[in-house]
Amino acid sequence: MRIDYQSILQQVAIFGQSSINKGKVADYIPELAKVELNHFGIAVDTLQGENFSVGDVNTKFSIQSISKVFSLTLAVSVLGEELWKRVGVEPSGNPFNSLVQLEFEKGIPRNPFINAGALVIADVIVSNFNDPKKEVLNFIRTLAGDTSIDFNLAVVASESEHGFNNRALVNFMKGFGNIHNDVETVLDLYFHVCSVEMTCKQLAKAFLLFANHGVLPVNSQQILTSGQAKRLNAIMLTCGFYDEAGEFAYRVGLPGKSGVGGGIAAFLPGELSVVTWSPGLNKFGNSVAGIHVLEMFTTLTNRSIF
Amino acid sequence: MRIDYQSILQQVAIFGQSSINKGKVADYIPELAKVELNHFGIAVDTLQGENFSVGDVNTKFSIQSISKVFSLTLAVSVLGEELWKRVGVEPSGNPFNSLVQLEFEKGIPRNPFINAGALVIADVIVSNFNDPKKEVLNFIRTLAGDTSIDFNLAVVASESEHGFNNRALVNFMKGFGNIHNDVETVLDLYFHVCSVEMTCKQLAKAFLLFANHGVLPVNSQQILTSGQAKRLNAIMLTCGFYDEAGEFAYRVGLPGKSGVGGGIAAFLPGELSVVTWSPGLNKFGNSVAGIHVLEMFTTLTNRSIF
Amino acid sequence: MRIDYQSILQQVAIFGQSSINKGKVADYIPELAKVELNHFGIAVDTLQGENFSVGDVNTKFSIQSISKVFSLTLAVSVLGEELWKRVGVEPSGNPFNSLVQLEFEKGIPRNPFINAGALVIADVIVSNFNDPKKEVLNFIRTLAGDTSIDFNLAVVASESEHGFNNRALVNFMKGFGNIHNDVETVLDLYFHVCSVEMTCKQLAKAFLLFANHGVLPVNSQQILTSGQAKRLNAIMLTCGFYDEAGEFAYRVGLPGKSGVGGGIAAFLPGELSVVTWSPGLNKFGNSVAGIHVLEMFTTLTNRSIF
Amino acid sequence: MRIDYQSILQQVAIFGQSSINKGKVADYIPELAKVELNHFGIAVDTLQGENFSVGDVNTKFSIQSISKVFSLTLAVSVLGEELWKRVGVEPSGNPFNSLVQLEFEKGIPRNPFINAGALVIADVIVSNFNDPKKEVLNFIRTLAGDTSIDFNLAVVASESEHGFNNRALVNFMKGFGNIHNDVETVLDLYFHVCSVEMTCKQLAKAFLLFANHGVLPVNSQQILTSGQAKRLNAIMLTCGFYDEAGEFAYRVGLPGKSGVGGGIAAFLPGELSVVTWSPGLNKFGNSVAGIHVLEMFTTLTNRSIF
Repeated sequence: MRIDYQSILQQVAIFGQSSINKGKVADYIPELAKVELNHFGIAVDTLQGENFSVGDVNTKFSIQSISKVFSLTLAVSVLGEELWKRVGVEPSGNPFNSLVQLEFEKGIPRNPFINAGALVIADVIVSNFNDPKKEVLNFIRTLAGDTSIDFNLAVVASESEHGFNNRALVNFMKGFGNIHNDVETVLDLYFHVCSVEMTCKQLAKAFLLFANHGVLPVNSQQILTSGQAKRLNAIMLTCGFYDEAGEFAYRVGLPGKSGVGGGIAAFLPGELSVVTWSPGLNKFGNSVAGIHVLEMFTTLTNRSIF
Repeated sequence: MRIDYQSILQQVAIFGQSSINKGKVADYIPELAKVELNHFGIAVDTLQGENFSVGDVNTKFSIQSISKVFSLTLAVSVLGEELWKRVGVEPSGNPFNSLVQLEFEKGIPRNPFINAGALVIADVIVSNFNDPKKEVLNFIRTLAGDTSIDFNLAVVASESEHGFNNRALVNFMKGFGNIHNDVETVLDLYFHVCSVEMTCKQLAKAFLLFANHGVLPVNSQQILTSGQAKRLNAIMLTCGFYDEAGEFAYRVGLPGKSGVGGGIAAFLPGELSVVTWSPGLNKFGNSVAGIHVLEMFTTLTNRSIF
Repeated sequence: MRIDYQSILQQVAIFGQSSINKGKVADYIPELAKVELNHFGIAVDTLQGENFSVGDVNTKFSIQSISKVFSLTLAVSVLGEELWKRVGVEPSGNPFNSLVQLEFEKGIPRNPFINAGALVIADVIVSNFNDPKKEVLNFIRTLAGDTSIDFNLAVVASESEHGFNNRALVNFMKGFGNIHNDVETVLDLYFHVCSVEMTCKQLAKAFLLFANHGVLPVNSQQILTSGQAKRLNAIMLTCGFYDEAGEFAYRVGLPGKSGVGGGIAAFLPGELSVVTWSPGLNKFGNSVAGIHVLEMFTTLTNRSIF
Repeated sequence: MRIDYQSILQQVAIFGQSSINKGKVADYIPELAKVELNHFGIAVDTLQGENFSVGDVNTKFSIQSISKVFSLTLAVSVLGEELWKRVGVEPSGNPFNSLVQLEFEKGIPRNPFINAGALVIADVIVSNFNDPKKEVLNFIRTLAGDTSIDFNLAVVASESEHGFNNRALVNFMKGFGNIHNDVETVLDLYFHVCSVEMTCKQLAKAFLLFANHGVLPVNSQQILTSGQAKRLNAIMLTCGFYDEAGEFAYRVGLPGKSGVGGGIAAFLPGELSVVTWSPGLNKFGNSVAGIHVLEMFTTLTNRSIF
């Protein structure tokens, strides 16, 4: 039976609207705190090439930690299995910026989605490309098929100014020998990549790569081997939602990644990608409306990995 | 295209045989240390009612932590959502018997599969049934459709004699008010349930419940709501393999649960259950041959949740 | 110049009275919670055989953790340097009932005054005496020169009933092999020794042993070598006041030990012992009035180790 | 009875020589690793103005963490009690460069002698002086009465180049708001102060300030109030020897401070200062020969705080 995605998106968007005010906009940097709470959008892209959307799906927002998926993808495509000597693949069981586990595990971050892990990924990219910022940006543009995607330099400046925790992390790991490049160069890449702005529609298109097992649907280019794609899917499922990964796996049942800009990008392997944006966050840093709506979406479509 | 499971099991069993000697039999209690390393079996049950198997699939072994799935299922069926006030659903990010996180989180275990969580589940069952040991045993017998399944009392005695860590955990949580019954009664149930002996075939039949979204295939009895079943599937995927859950999700890509008796029970939602047994463990407490073979199985059948 | 101790005690007692109501009586067991807040006493014994006191110095109170000094003294006198293989001598840097450090350090408690350490000491005493409870009691009676000192069995029962944390600790250490006897036997001794009731005057007499470098003043019996006495003095100074040892060392500048019954026993090596009792505790579990008055005492007498 | 210090120093120096080779020279920075193991010196200054010494007492060595005492003294003299809002006074119970406790305690270091605490002290000094490096250097020169004391700029460069852990710490605390100045300015002061070179004789003279309760013996200038001096003495006793403070308090029984350059500066309040230098360190970072000799010294002179 064919699913009427547009109709379902319209239904779930009503619930999204009702949840908008229950969260709190990220305020750890002024540039994010400026965003108004009152936004909601949802976009679906299928591997058959269909697009569905409701709400603020053409408004650019700061993708923040969702960018960690793109950096990781690029690093995996370059380094392959070698990468897993420098960063783990297990859930962290600790708030996302904790230093405790990192100390216990000698500077090897538990996974590439905690900040420490993403900084190691940034270091890998700095080691492998002449112009790392441009390389990541072009990579994201290619996945999303849109050359207008760009950094928000005001966000970069704001992140850098308030980035003491990340400075601590990268120095700490350099002390363990797990950062190979200049600390400020690594941080500069990291802050830039976090600042990338995209719309729900752009993200939905970009995440088709993961739904499609590592092959870019638009031109059948193989970016990741199917083994690498499976690895990324597993990491997104077990580590993609800070300290709420288990709850998300249950309520939504899709691999994906959230960001404190209020975006959530998820996908059903072999079928579709689905992206929501609503800037009000719960205490774990995930979008309240986003999780609510994605739960409704997988319930109404009866589509999840379980 | 129809998959020839029997042929695939024969292929993967060859790899299983080659991995048998790479692990180490659990030796923390004498009863487990007695088991010979040289065993391997794999059994598959599909929701269509087919059964496939190769190797030692009719030999009883100590299911150990796999039993935590059965206890949890019984507790969820009785208590519903209330249960999650007393135990979390997030990966622990620490070795399975750690007390650190438990102290930090005030006696609420991170998830029901770490020992602390399973002890809370045991406490819930003690609170809700007159004869809790008999109740759990009957429940397992019902799921597996086999009344010959029983406790191994020598294992119970051995577990109890060496159970200082579990005694510490249950007392510690009682200090936080998260154990409601007598400590020794809770431990007695816990040790009995860990000692249950089953074969690969029996486990494969029992795990069809989870593949079938909470409905017992044999008589269509609804044991769990589909929401509860989804919850259990998510917990198995993110927490079912000690400190190797992320690795298992990647290599195998199925929800499931392992035990230090060398068993691994997994399933593909909507399709089948698959159980392996080989007592040689890796450093995380998971069967070396089991993981290897299950990885081959999902690769050759091209069936996983990703 | 001769110090007029009686006059000084009268002065400091006024400050003690003014601090009585600033603390909170221990309420973790009902028997302690019954004690009225409105008590204050201070007693000084000198090595010249003089005694001075003001206030409630003949009222028995629960000495609680002060008893750890007596158990440790007995254990050191029996086992000598061997003891330090089973318990450390370093400050713990953590609240007194923490399990974290114990796990990290493989079941060897940081020092004999945290609960875990005192339980190991209890285990040592159980291993070395036929009637360990009687032995410790007689030892305390000998030090204080008073055969009327006894256990409070209601406190013992109350401690045992609420002793889940201590049960957790002792089982946890038994899992590491650092408890050699039956868990309940060790706990029974521990709970009894904590329940001993003494007066300020009795404690002041008993603590002259430490002021006198291990020799009982009354009969010149050498209980500890001078090396062992120095060790105990150092441990009391660095570890005797839970997570407030550094603050006490500064404000008072005497080695000693506090208990949640509101007692503090301290001494100036080579000169005197000084004991206060006032049941109102600060957040660290130390008597508010006791610390205030001892600070005044060392200031007015210009006598401290610094 | 008058003590013949010179004779005692000659005796203990023999034991010092025998321990020289049992330790290991610090090698975390190349400049320290260059120092030859084969050095030993001991110097005593009394408040009566006598000086005694044996061995390499005129050789300059890197005082390293001993400098933390001087910085702290300067900060206390400027800020008074306010200082203790930004750094604690309790032993840390963890290796000296641990981040765990710092995270748990929200960026307030446990005490001023762990690296994090010393960085906060450096930040305080930067806030209060126009030329902080010059100020600290002049302060040390005043205490030691010797204007030739200086920084070793090669050590500064080496510390800075390998200072990732300290960079992590200072950024981490800045994230908590407990560093008020530019991170690199604070680190620059910190690295300079650690690099100060002094001889045993110079250190012995400088430490008379603490033996003399905060008054400079040479000119009776009151640098610290007696309360402030008592505070510093207490901190040195409980925190001055990394994770070996309890052991040092027992074996030696004097307040003091060690450095990984192999120096130990200690003192007996009201009487004398005593300084040893021997670059071979034990696993805690304290000089093996230094501790051995100081233990002999307090035993033979029968002078300690206990």
